[in-house]
Amino acid sequence: MKTDSGTVDLGAFDFECGVEIPSLEVAYESYGEFTGDNAVLVCHALTGSQNVAGYGSDTAGQARAWWNDIVGPGKAIDTNEYYVVCANVPGSCYGTTGPASEGPDGDPYGTDFPPVTVGDWTRSQRLLLDELGVGRLHAVVGGSVGGMNALDWVQRYPDDVRYLLAVATAGRLDPQCLALDAIARRAITTDPNWNGGDYYGVSDEGTESDGSSDSSDGGKTPDDGLALARQLGHVMYLSKASMERKFGRRAAGRDAQRDSFPTDPAASFFPYRDVESYLDYQAEKFVERFDANSYLYLTRAMDDYDLSEGYEDDADAVAAFEGEALLLSFTGDWHFTTEQAESLAESFRETSVPVAHHVVESDHGHDAFLVEPEKVGPPVRDFLESGVEGRSVHDTEEEPESLPDDRDFAPVHSSLFSR
Amino acid sequence: MKTDSGTVDLGAFDFECGVEIPSLEVAYESYGEFTGDNAVLVCHALTGSQNVAGYGSDTAGQARAWWNDIVGPGKAIDTNEYYVVCANVPGSCYGTTGPASEGPDGDPYGTDFPPVTVGDWTRSQRLLLDELGVGRLHAVVGGSVGGMNALDWVQRYPDDVRYLLAVATAGRLDPQCLALDAIARRAITTDPNWNGGDYYGVSDEGTESDGSSDSSDGGKTPDDGLALARQLGHVMYLSKASMERKFGRRAAGRDAQRDSFPTDPAASFFPYRDVESYLDYQAEKFVERFDANSYLYLTRAMDDYDLSEGYEDDADAVAAFEGEALLLSFTGDWHFTTEQAESLAESFRETSVPVAHHVVESDHGHDAFLVEPEKVGPPVRDFLESGVEGRSVHDTEEEPESLPDDRDFAPVHSSLFSR
Repeated sequence: MKTDSGTVDLGAFDFECGVEIPSLEVAYESYGEFTGDNAVLVCHALTGSQNVAGYGSDTAGQARAWWNDIVGPGKAIDTNEYYVVCANVPGSCYGTTGPASEGPDGDPYGTDFPPVTVGDWTRSQRLLLDELGVGRLHAVVGGSVGGMNALDWVQRYPDDVRYLLAVATAGRLDPQCLALDAIARRAITTDPNWNGGDYYGVSDEGTESDGSSDSSDGGKTPDDGLALARQLGHVMYLSKASMERKFGRRAAGRDAQRDSFPTDPAASFFPYRDVESYLDYQAEKFVERFDANSYLYLTRAMDDYDLSEGYEDDADAVAAFEGEALLLSFTGDWHFTTEQAESLAESFRETSVPVAHHVVESDHGHDAFLVEPEKVGPPVRDFLESGVEGRSVHDTEEEPESLPDDRDFAPVHSSLFSR
Repeated sequence: MKTDSGTVDLGAFDFECGVEIPSLEVAYESYGEFTGDNAVLVCHALTGSQNVAGYGSDTAGQARAWWNDIVGPGKAIDTNEYYVVCANVPGSCYGTTGPASEGPDGDPYGTDFPPVTVGDWTRSQRLLLDELGVGRLHAVVGGSVGGMNALDWVQRYPDDVRYLLAVATAGRLDPQCLALDAIARRAITTDPNWNGGDYYGVSDEGTESDGSSDSSDGGKTPDDGLALARQLGHVMYLSKASMERKFGRRAAGRDAQRDSFPTDPAASFFPYRDVESYLDYQAEKFVERFDANSYLYLTRAMDDYDLSEGYEDDADAVAAFEGEALLLSFTGDWHFTTEQAESLAESFRETSVPVAHHVVESDHGHDAFLVEPEKVGPPVRDFLESGVEGRSVHDTEEEPESLPDDRDFAPVHSSLFSR
């Protein structure tokens, strides 16, 4: 398989906020051969990277090969057939220009970096694809906030997309998620090491030092705040059921050390639980790979996204799109609910675009789109090949009679969390 | 109505952890006249106080009169009829000995205070009632972790309770709640002003100063960490539906200031949302009234509580109880779910104690037990008067035929969050 990875300098870039930077570099990877009409743009999630399928760069830590079960030769998004492109979004920290990048004055932008929106991501991807010689996309695919990115594509460039595949996403976050994201940002900005966003490579003596040592000793970068933000995110990505199965109330193994955070003497009377140990471990890994300012910027972009903004409603926002749309949602996902996906499906139905809302029965929570490839793969593969008529693609509007007896997905149901 | 409030010194107290302190003072309030068999013990929730009904002390801030809609003359827990006692739990900060209290050496205990368990709360209440001349209780009533406290009563002193009324509670927290509580504690202990728990009345110069000025200038007490912990708790107490209704995605009013926490310049491009403003306001109020170390201690007690500990299962734990039990749960509550309450009900059913599980249809989340008195009051009143046969008391096991046509509560249903 032909793969390519690199960074393209798009030159001066006007952000939606009205601020221009002189040079926006976009890091991307591509897999497969471009034949003119087989390009699939994959949009990554909040802390994801361009390294969707595990080739090319290996600098992305946990964000490496994040959808390797779905994208690759012979897989659901078959790189033998499609030319798959994934780009790191502006404001992130995997090679595309963001707060940690060097600004025009030679210092890191820090919080002088312009505010970023999902629209900025989409526009940067359009410019990148121009550079790569890609006009119309066979498909744009994204999960979570990457699904918002994909929705933004069909609103902004309706003629450029044949198939929209939006996974575990919504037209906008609900206030519960807005609240949790806000708390996560406060955890970062109240960490004294955040220092107003100015923590890059500056030691106590005010001299330059390499960021990695700051990061590893935990003394200079806002690791505690970023770790807390990540732990909150992690709880949002799981479900009660998956946490019960993974951890229960079990104490952590004997080797687990309660040393990620300061604690008080009374704590030692109580077990260090498996769930705490897991979150602590994941957070420690995360702070090694992600930039705290990027976390602020990208969550703000996600919180701000609203498909209907500037339109009458969601249906109006996607009215110009004439392709086909598949919405994939997961019953155990309380971050982006099946109800939100069904609401999106209704909007597409109003426009008479062929649309299907395929509900996957899963108690894995929001993470399901990453960890249940055997359920995600078939509808993805068949949709990319045949649109909503694809064999494994189901829809919430299907007549019960027309369903096979052994269908393994649940109908949309109202939940504790529905509005 | 006769009311009484005060502090009783119970003398030396052995905590379940094995540590003894020389003097445990318990702050309590009582309402109504004790006639020998009419005592009702009310157990407060995590950050509640003894001031259940708004008489007596007025030092409890938001914790003042926390169940005033339910407890009082002519109300569901009628103080003309019952002698209602509520006591602040050990480890809290409303007058009962806790981390902020002066220890034997004249300094605040801080984190030298022994770890506290729900069992310690129950035992301190038993001793207090002895002092007040109360033997057997007509009822023990509690909501949230106060409901765990009430469950602990019938496990520990089964002969001392006629009616158990456990509201919006569970036999134990699930791992999702354990995770969120752990994150909340980490927010406190990573606040540099927490200082290992030693932040009471010590100024920068190391001289004594009054705690209130520290608290109000926010410079010396771990206000940021405690505020974050409270905000997380607040999200747990609400539901998606109630947050949607209360806040939606609206921007806060023009007078709202984004000044509770440090922020970065890019934030000003995005709205300061109503939901953020609300959480910030609530958190500011909370840090004025609550002690950060108490928050650590009391959440640990809640996390640790497990009704079945030392027993075969929940049914075995309550097997010696021969009174009647009412479990009240709320459909929109994802902190303590209807499923958890139903599981408790099943355990009581195994013991052949008369039990009812009354499910209240509400989208107010966990807060429902505080903010829906018109739904909570009738079953509470009738249960205290007539047990599970009380007119307004319904049960999940009732035959559908026997229900009135206009019943306004939902059957137990499985949800996104069920196991």
